[in-house]
Amino acid sequence: MRFSSITLLPLLLTTTLTTATTPSKSQLANRSKKFSLGIVLFPGFEPLDVIGPFEILQSVSAYYPLSISFIASQTGPITSRSPPHVMVPGQPPVNLDHLIAVSLHATHTFATAPPLDILLIPGGMGNMVLVENNDTTIESFIQSRYKSLTHLLSVCTGSVSLARSGVLKNKRATTNKSFWNWVVQFGEGVKWVPSARWTHDGKIWTSSGVAAGMDMTYAFLSKVYGKEGVVDNVLNAIEYAPHTDPKWDPFSVVWDVPGADTKGSLKSCVKPVGF
Amino acid sequence: MRFSSITLLPLLLTTTLTTATTPSKSQLANRSKKFSLGIVLFPGFEPLDVIGPFEILQSVSAYYPLSISFIASQTGPITSRSPPHVMVPGQPPVNLDHLIAVSLHATHTFATAPPLDILLIPGGMGNMVLVENNDTTIESFIQSRYKSLTHLLSVCTGSVSLARSGVLKNKRATTNKSFWNWVVQFGEGVKWVPSARWTHDGKIWTSSGVAAGMDMTYAFLSKVYGKEGVVDNVLNAIEYAPHTDPKWDPFSVVWDVPGADTKGSLKSCVKPVGF
Repeated sequence: MRFSSITLLPLLLTTTLTTATTPSKSQLANRSKKFSLGIVLFPGFEPLDVIGPFEILQSVSAYYPLSISFIASQTGPITSRSPPHVMVPGQPPVNLDHLIAVSLHATHTFATAPPLDILLIPGGMGNMVLVENNDTTIESFIQSRYKSLTHLLSVCTGSVSLARSGVLKNKRATTNKSFWNWVVQFGEGVKWVPSARWTHDGKIWTSSGVAAGMDMTYAFLSKVYGKEGVVDNVLNAIEYAPHTDPKWDPFSVVWDVPGADTKGSLKSCVKPVGF
Repeated sequence: MRFSSITLLPLLLTTTLTTATTPSKSQLANRSKKFSLGIVLFPGFEPLDVIGPFEILQSVSAYYPLSISFIASQTGPITSRSPPHVMVPGQPPVNLDHLIAVSLHATHTFATAPPLDILLIPGGMGNMVLVENNDTTIESFIQSRYKSLTHLLSVCTGSVSLARSGVLKNKRATTNKSFWNWVVQFGEGVKWVPSARWTHDGKIWTSSGVAAGMDMTYAFLSKVYGKEGVVDNVLNAIEYAPHTDPKWDPFSVVWDVPGADTKGSLKSCVKPVGF
């Protein structure tokens, strides 16, 4: 039963003055397609990498049909606490048990995940552990699903999995900036972009660190559905004023990324979308 | 084992030029106190209300000792999907099953939750269901814990629980702006503030909708610990450039809140903290 927009957001249709853009035919068609979303989880995932984008997607799903699978090596609670792992080569593994953590519920395993249209890979310290343990489960999953996906997204160090799976060959990609040096060693032929809030190349979208996932998600959904109407109103309902310039990346300067655009402004002026 | 800052964020100490403020004696003392955090969950909680603040808190916990309890009526997975509920008085309950949802793992019940220093109440559609069902479990919990808390925080419609518990009497508070009219009917003597990204009155902090929880959390932790050093660096590691003016609230204008400050700028210019 489709939720009446009138009851969900009383002011939805009367208040927002969106900029005058018209959705394309394919954007209109997408609004009725039931996209199957998958989000991968692993011990030590970064919570906001997942929930920043998910909050927007959940809100949009009140209006445009979506389905979700949270996919991990096992179903049930998956913790954001990273297992002990080596942070500095040659040093003993570091124990992160003193950090607080949250567990999200995985609904599917890599084996039981349904057909997917859109797949999102988050980042987090857990990426380092997987690499250290030569665990290529996520990479294998990406390889097996890539052809049938309409879109593949990563947030933060999630782009490491994309790189290691080979799908980033000759493609532009970015990652979070405080771990830049670690990330860019991976992947053959990857065009790593030092200053980018997010990148978009073909069906692959990658974002910078953590909070940047929300900005990428807004840009992504604006492209898929058109921003006017639901997408813009969702952003205003969750009171997020997004960064809309993918080139704005002051954190590449903050974290001294080699090749960062040091001439660009560190500042970004934002406002409610459509206003 | 305290995690070495050198290995966690290689650039932590060398790169960030924080503004010249010195932490107070009590802020320095707080950095060694192990604050016991509690976050309440209920069916239909808003995911980003929880995880926006939690991402910052988890990151800070690598450096300052914290403990966390996720508290609900039962332990185990708690869904962000709201049960059916009445949206418009006189209308039948609306079913929200078609929305996608995520489940977070509750670690404690209201009965088993440990002593708490800081308690956070998120918002979400689920608030409406609780009110409709005359469920005052959360309000009773707040009442029983209030005296022993050092701080009580709410995000979004979470302030409804604070209002109904009576702790907001003669105190300033705010809520998300798209449901303003529903929220402000609650609570005796509450000084509801129509335009506020967040409010702070005594030991109570309340934020506007969803994403505003992160801005409030940064202001809150800056007050508790002092911003220089860990708190600022965490914000830059998660690449979030916060809104730092509690009076900036363009969403009160977007959503036509009675009494909103229509003269203030809808725009906010942000940058990495400390830069």
